[in-house]
Amino acid sequence: MKALVYNGPGKKALEDRPQPDIAAPTDAVVKIAKTTICGTDLHILKGDVPTCTPGRVLGHEGVGVVDKVGDAVTAFHPGDRVIVSCISSCGKCDYCRRGMYSHCVNGGWILGNKIDGTQAEYVRIPFADTSLYHIPEGADDDALVMLSDILPTGFECGVLNGKVEPGSTVAIVGAGPIGLAALLTAQFYSPGQIVMIDMDDNRLQMATRFGATAVINNKDGKAVDKIMKMTNGRGVDAAIEAVGVPASFLTCEDIVAPGGIIANIGVHGVKADLHLERLWDRNIAITTRLVDTVTTPMLLKTVQSHRIDPKQLITHRFKFANILEAYETFGAAAKTNALKVLIEA
Amino acid sequence: MKALVYNGPGKKALEDRPQPDIAAPTDAVVKIAKTTICGTDLHILKGDVPTCTPGRVLGHEGVGVVDKVGDAVTAFHPGDRVIVSCISSCGKCDYCRRGMYSHCVNGGWILGNKIDGTQAEYVRIPFADTSLYHIPEGADDDALVMLSDILPTGFECGVLNGKVEPGSTVAIVGAGPIGLAALLTAQFYSPGQIVMIDMDDNRLQMATRFGATAVINNKDGKAVDKIMKMTNGRGVDAAIEAVGVPASFLTCEDIVAPGGIIANIGVHGVKADLHLERLWDRNIAITTRLVDTVTTPMLLKTVQSHRIDPKQLITHRFKFANILEAYETFGAAAKTNALKVLIEA
Amino acid sequence: MKALVYNGPGKKALEDRPQPDIAAPTDAVVKIAKTTICGTDLHILKGDVPTCTPGRVLGHEGVGVVDKVGDAVTAFHPGDRVIVSCISSCGKCDYCRRGMYSHCVNGGWILGNKIDGTQAEYVRIPFADTSLYHIPEGADDDALVMLSDILPTGFECGVLNGKVEPGSTVAIVGAGPIGLAALLTAQFYSPGQIVMIDMDDNRLQMATRFGATAVINNKDGKAVDKIMKMTNGRGVDAAIEAVGVPASFLTCEDIVAPGGIIANIGVHGVKADLHLERLWDRNIAITTRLVDTVTTPMLLKTVQSHRIDPKQLITHRFKFANILEAYETFGAAAKTNALKVLIEA
Amino acid sequence: MKALVYNGPGKKALEDRPQPDIAAPTDAVVKIAKTTICGTDLHILKGDVPTCTPGRVLGHEGVGVVDKVGDAVTAFHPGDRVIVSCISSCGKCDYCRRGMYSHCVNGGWILGNKIDGTQAEYVRIPFADTSLYHIPEGADDDALVMLSDILPTGFECGVLNGKVEPGSTVAIVGAGPIGLAALLTAQFYSPGQIVMIDMDDNRLQMATRFGATAVINNKDGKAVDKIMKMTNGRGVDAAIEAVGVPASFLTCEDIVAPGGIIANIGVHGVKADLHLERLWDRNIAITTRLVDTVTTPMLLKTVQSHRIDPKQLITHRFKFANILEAYETFGAAAKTNALKVLIEA
Repeated sequence: MKALVYNGPGKKALEDRPQPDIAAPTDAVVKIAKTTICGTDLHILKGDVPTCTPGRVLGHEGVGVVDKVGDAVTAFHPGDRVIVSCISSCGKCDYCRRGMYSHCVNGGWILGNKIDGTQAEYVRIPFADTSLYHIPEGADDDALVMLSDILPTGFECGVLNGKVEPGSTVAIVGAGPIGLAALLTAQFYSPGQIVMIDMDDNRLQMATRFGATAVINNKDGKAVDKIMKMTNGRGVDAAIEAVGVPASFLTCEDIVAPGGIIANIGVHGVKADLHLERLWDRNIAITTRLVDTVTTPMLLKTVQSHRIDPKQLITHRFKFANILEAYETFGAAAKTNALKVLIEA
Repeated sequence: MKALVYNGPGKKALEDRPQPDIAAPTDAVVKIAKTTICGTDLHILKGDVPTCTPGRVLGHEGVGVVDKVGDAVTAFHPGDRVIVSCISSCGKCDYCRRGMYSHCVNGGWILGNKIDGTQAEYVRIPFADTSLYHIPEGADDDALVMLSDILPTGFECGVLNGKVEPGSTVAIVGAGPIGLAALLTAQFYSPGQIVMIDMDDNRLQMATRFGATAVINNKDGKAVDKIMKMTNGRGVDAAIEAVGVPASFLTCEDIVAPGGIIANIGVHGVKADLHLERLWDRNIAITTRLVDTVTTPMLLKTVQSHRIDPKQLITHRFKFANILEAYETFGAAAKTNALKVLIEA
Repeated sequence: MKALVYNGPGKKALEDRPQPDIAAPTDAVVKIAKTTICGTDLHILKGDVPTCTPGRVLGHEGVGVVDKVGDAVTAFHPGDRVIVSCISSCGKCDYCRRGMYSHCVNGGWILGNKIDGTQAEYVRIPFADTSLYHIPEGADDDALVMLSDILPTGFECGVLNGKVEPGSTVAIVGAGPIGLAALLTAQFYSPGQIVMIDMDDNRLQMATRFGATAVINNKDGKAVDKIMKMTNGRGVDAAIEAVGVPASFLTCEDIVAPGGIIANIGVHGVKADLHLERLWDRNIAITTRLVDTVTTPMLLKTVQSHRIDPKQLITHRFKFANILEAYETFGAAAKTNALKVLIEA
Repeated sequence: MKALVYNGPGKKALEDRPQPDIAAPTDAVVKIAKTTICGTDLHILKGDVPTCTPGRVLGHEGVGVVDKVGDAVTAFHPGDRVIVSCISSCGKCDYCRRGMYSHCVNGGWILGNKIDGTQAEYVRIPFADTSLYHIPEGADDDALVMLSDILPTGFECGVLNGKVEPGSTVAIVGAGPIGLAALLTAQFYSPGQIVMIDMDDNRLQMATRFGATAVINNKDGKAVDKIMKMTNGRGVDAAIEAVGVPASFLTCEDIVAPGGIIANIGVHGVKADLHLERLWDRNIAITTRLVDTVTTPMLLKTVQSHRIDPKQLITHRFKFANILEAYETFGAAAKTNALKVLIEA
């Protein structure tokens, strides 16, 4: 089969690979119908993710059809249409039983990282019963590709951790795909204001279309002032960090109201300054989280009941044969305005 | 001044009354601009509320303008436009400090019950600082009359107690004003299904317009069967009781899913059967609540940000001089299709 | 092997049975070291549990040693010392993933009910990875038999559902084994008062020894009056029902404070009266629950750190060969003062 | 009257001052029976607290007897024995109504800071109804002085924010008075392990006496290694920071388990490094908090029911006339082993 392979920093190729097979009784093999590219894939290609070694098939998102299952798999059968979760959950370890699948001692984020991933014709999924989700009759595959990673990430790390609630004031720092996923899912809770902060006008326009009640282009570095003005000097109830650099985290520290929450989604490469001399008495919380995908069933219901349309995040489409072109488009988002690129078998 | 006075079971009159004055340093006197009639007022008129004695000015809802304040009132000044809460909260007692204003040992539901109420030109409001709410600049008075009682009641007793959440399945038994208030506010949380059950087609049509995803006319007594079918035999996550009779409570017992909640809003006059022989192992919760109006500030923000339009509940309008006619219209809701009748000074 | 077999209402026998074997890749077979008898076993013997058919080996509690495991079992190996949970959890279904193992669609309470149980030399445990718990080095087996069912039941259904907290006021109606398990575990949260209500002075003495701050013998029917006096007319924050009859549930309705919780543990055979005409405005919650045993790991830690000594519940000991005598002793608790009887291989 | 006055950095004196009087209808004047000194008082004396200006009477802790009340005070009367809360709460503002008294827009921490405090014969208490607490009949005054500030601080900022629960693993960094207050109140929740980390052997001995299950002297800088060993490499569920310097906060970052919480109590003067490059995917929370004293009623109940004995914190006693000596003893804690010094009228 064809697969997109990471061959060390800066190197990737569409290669021929043997089709994966069942290796443990809890495995399934899934024929991928649609997949996509994540910002993390770009990180791997830069050499920033040491757990991912050369030779690895990339990709941790996708929908497809079950091809084979191991003896202990009971919830899925060949022919079942499924969503692949970016997180593999054994369902047995302490972390899984507490709903913290991200830290599964037998799984976690391993797909397209420590084991071969979904940017291929077939993928082996460990712990299939607890890492795949049935696609309901009549559901739209395209939308559901967004449930593998980006929607639960924005929702769990940003919206749930940020405790967004009716009437509350939310700021999202970073209007990339993940910030927009937070924006879409924050609206489940009817906040009063959702302000989007970025430096790219195109993304901010997108944010307005996606439901932001205000947008701030922070090229002039005045976002903090503007937020404080908009909130009568109080700050925001939830400051969602969706970039992953010290500056944007600092913005969150500056705009969080007493009693508020900084919900970090961003993948950080370096430390940030935590101004405890200002924050120690502010009654705030700061949360971090690798997505657990524990909300996938909930999100599926919101898609089915049309409370959200995740397809809005898809800006480009490619055939799998052209996945290298898809990478190019996604990697040049500033130029192409790409959010999520859909790659179809 | 003119006031609507309860003169014992079945008797009410528009009478002349002395204008109320400050009686305690924490009091305010409010000139009523708009008020409305509650189902509870009808209960009083039937003689069902023994705490309300003949001679009482009725009414516990309304907006108006502060006329006078006592020495200890600091948050309100003459001329301020305000919402009157149906619950008077002293802000000091154990219950108030725990956010359970309904059980305030110095207040609670006293307006138009143990002390004179809002269906008058002026009303004295005890504990003004913690029982009135500022009307924001530019806000629509009509909508805000719904914040005195009906919206917080539907929201707190039905939606919050019912823990409605994204994608969840909700049934509301009773499509009267209070059930519709629950329906409107349940949508803050983006449930997957909200099914409205009633015996009145007009109310069910209204429910559909207000956002119900399905409606069931239970004249044939088949609501339980239909709900179980709609939920694949599982039942609903939240069953909201908005009638107040044993039969509707029983419906809730029959449709609640394992792990679900029965959130009672209805005012009950008699006991109900609790089928513990079926429910003891179902992992359910049943909640009761007199509204605390602790969410008034939150609701105000949702109105201001257009997440909800409570004005939809207003079906009729009267001048205060015609309040007896308003009572007639509201009391004959089955014929007039009245939900909330607005009474303007 | 020898096994205690239910042969229809009123009939049980110690019989020879074939040793169980692995039937599914997720099974384990456990050699039972110690088991015990539950009130539910007596219910079965009365013919009250229709899911349990004649020929069934009884018992859903015990500790032992893993004898064999299926291919898909990864967390346990032959020779491992284990606690058997009374609830079999597949770890995959919606209910299991929400921590509601009691309603596992593939398991739940099946041991000694729908499949053969632990009152035997060997038992087959389905879903072993998610239904067994490792016994830590050096731990006391006797104490851990109490973790199969009685401790998590008292804790989850009574204490957690009752939201017992530091300084709060708790009443437990029923000082049988399950009420005493609630009493022991309620103390994890340092409540201010824990009042035990029963009609048996011996059990109340036991309750005092186990940490009750007050006890009430309700033979005179004055428990409600006494509780109201002890709480200055306010009632209790948590009323835990540990009997399972309408009268004791009604006591809970009468003593729960505004804002309080009635946490039902009792297994009820008939409906109870729910006095909604008094409770609709009391802001209370009523909870029901079949134990999920989701807190077994937490309870294990409290035993290991000596925060609780569950061995106190053991009043009698028997060899497995004498299990019929154990049943006799346990069945005549009023005379023998039996709480839990330990049955050793 | 006599009062301890701050006269600018490094300067304090026992001076004659006019007795305070009622200034607002919500005020009370309290005759102080017992007070104490807080670490914050030492901060003020170093000139670190700019809101506290020369001429200020210090002190924000104490018990006493109500001397006079304003017209709007209804819950307290002259002669009532009371605890003075370190936080003045108006009971009306948004923050107070949300239970966040620390950020009361009319009060907060003002006593002995922005207005004259409790280290005097008399003190004026604003918002008396919501800032004083009745001392129950027969209660021990000495113990209750600890309820003004230190116990609620350790409890709210450390234990509640740290979500300590039965069986959980807690580390407290800093065994000073505030760390010990956290240690005492953490035991309300029956954690499995509470490890105390400090550099002072005397304090660690005290910690053992107060209930720590293990202590670590970090002079060798190996606390992190030791904690990781004690927790099998997992880290702690709650890391409570009770020092207020970057190094101790960093220790917390290093020992917090995935899914755990860093609950900051310490007053920080400078920023700390937040290692988001290691923590972004650890699913942790960091909390900060100025004590709200919202748990004072709860703590009072735990003292009354002997679940805790806060008097253990008192190491020295002085007459008010000797308060300068008390300051000396408290200021030289390393030598005197002082925890809390009690100052009696």
